Amino acid sequence: MDTASSLATNLSPVSPLLGTWKGQGSGSYPTIEDFSYSEEVTFTDVGKPFLHFVQKTRGPAGNPMHTETGYLRIPGDGTAELILAQPTGQTELCEGTLTVDGDSVVLEFRASVMNSASAKQVTSTHRRYELVGDRLTTTFAMAAVGQPLTHHLRSELVRG
Amino acid sequence: MDTASSLATNLSPVSPLLGTWKGQGSGSYPTIEDFSYSEEVTFTDVGKPFLHFVQKTRGPAGNPMHTETGYLRIPGDGTAELILAQPTGQTELCEGTLTVDGDSVVLEFRASVMNSASAKQVTSTHRRYELVGDRLTTTFAMAAVGQPLTHHLRSELVRG
Repeated sequence: MDTASSLATNLSPVSPLLGTWKGQGSGSYPTIEDFSYSEEVTFTDVGKPFLHFVQKTRGPAGNPMHTETGYLRIPGDGTAELILAQPTGQTELCEGTLTVDGDSVVLEFRASVMNSASAKQVTSTHRRYELVGDRLTTTFAMAAVGQPLTHHLRSELVRG
Repeated sequence: MDTASSLATNLSPVSPLLGTWKGQGSGSYPTIEDFSYSEEVTFTDVGKPFLHFVQKTRGPAGNPMHTETGYLRIPGDGTAELILAQPTGQTELCEGTLTVDGDSVVLEFRASVMNSASAKQVTSTHRRYELVGDRLTTTFAMAAVGQPLTHHLRSELVRG
């Protein structure tokens, strides 16, 4: 597909995110040991007015850890939506803001979470994706398993 | 990845679904004209105790229509969960049953739906995937835009 010519107009502000981003991250949470991971995030144009999103992380030994997938929607007026499915049994309806300033693109979301019957209980999350130049910094906080909204993950990625 | 040897034990009952399924479908809904489409559904083992799921449809001219993605979870005791993200702005937490009988595998789900601020309003959905031998039949009903739960889509797929 000729993505360069077909990108939907509403996606222009997030076109710098298109492609695959790779790097390292570190995680912490009150209920677990600190850990580190490698991460890959991909935003793909599928010829429609949204981007497909997929994130994958691996442990230091290369073992698959987390993955999540969904769609980035840019309805306009500085709003953004990230519609996510989690293999851990949650859906996350992430709604928030898109801020573009020079070569900086920032997406920031609070999520409404639903948990399946068999899942650990996540009550809310906060995600931030900050692209400055060629560096994408991601942060993730969550309220889960009885803990209040607490920092969990931070990664620094470059175009892969 | 050697998926044959690594498939998580809980996924054994749904192993016949692994791979890509292709075929034709037809759609109807009280608010729109009847339509037909081609469909591709893929269930992928990623080396974890869930399957990655992606569905894509195209119109008669080959134009991309719908897509959805997420994860199939098989917690046991005849239950199944399909955690879905919709590019149309919905999350669907689909919970239901897995029934295996000879060469028949049936997944049936009711969804709890959340709609983003910019989305058309979907209030509930019902999905059924029936694999008999080498034929996968899918049906989808939804309550949306003021309509009660109403049949919307049916497709017949074979291994692609």
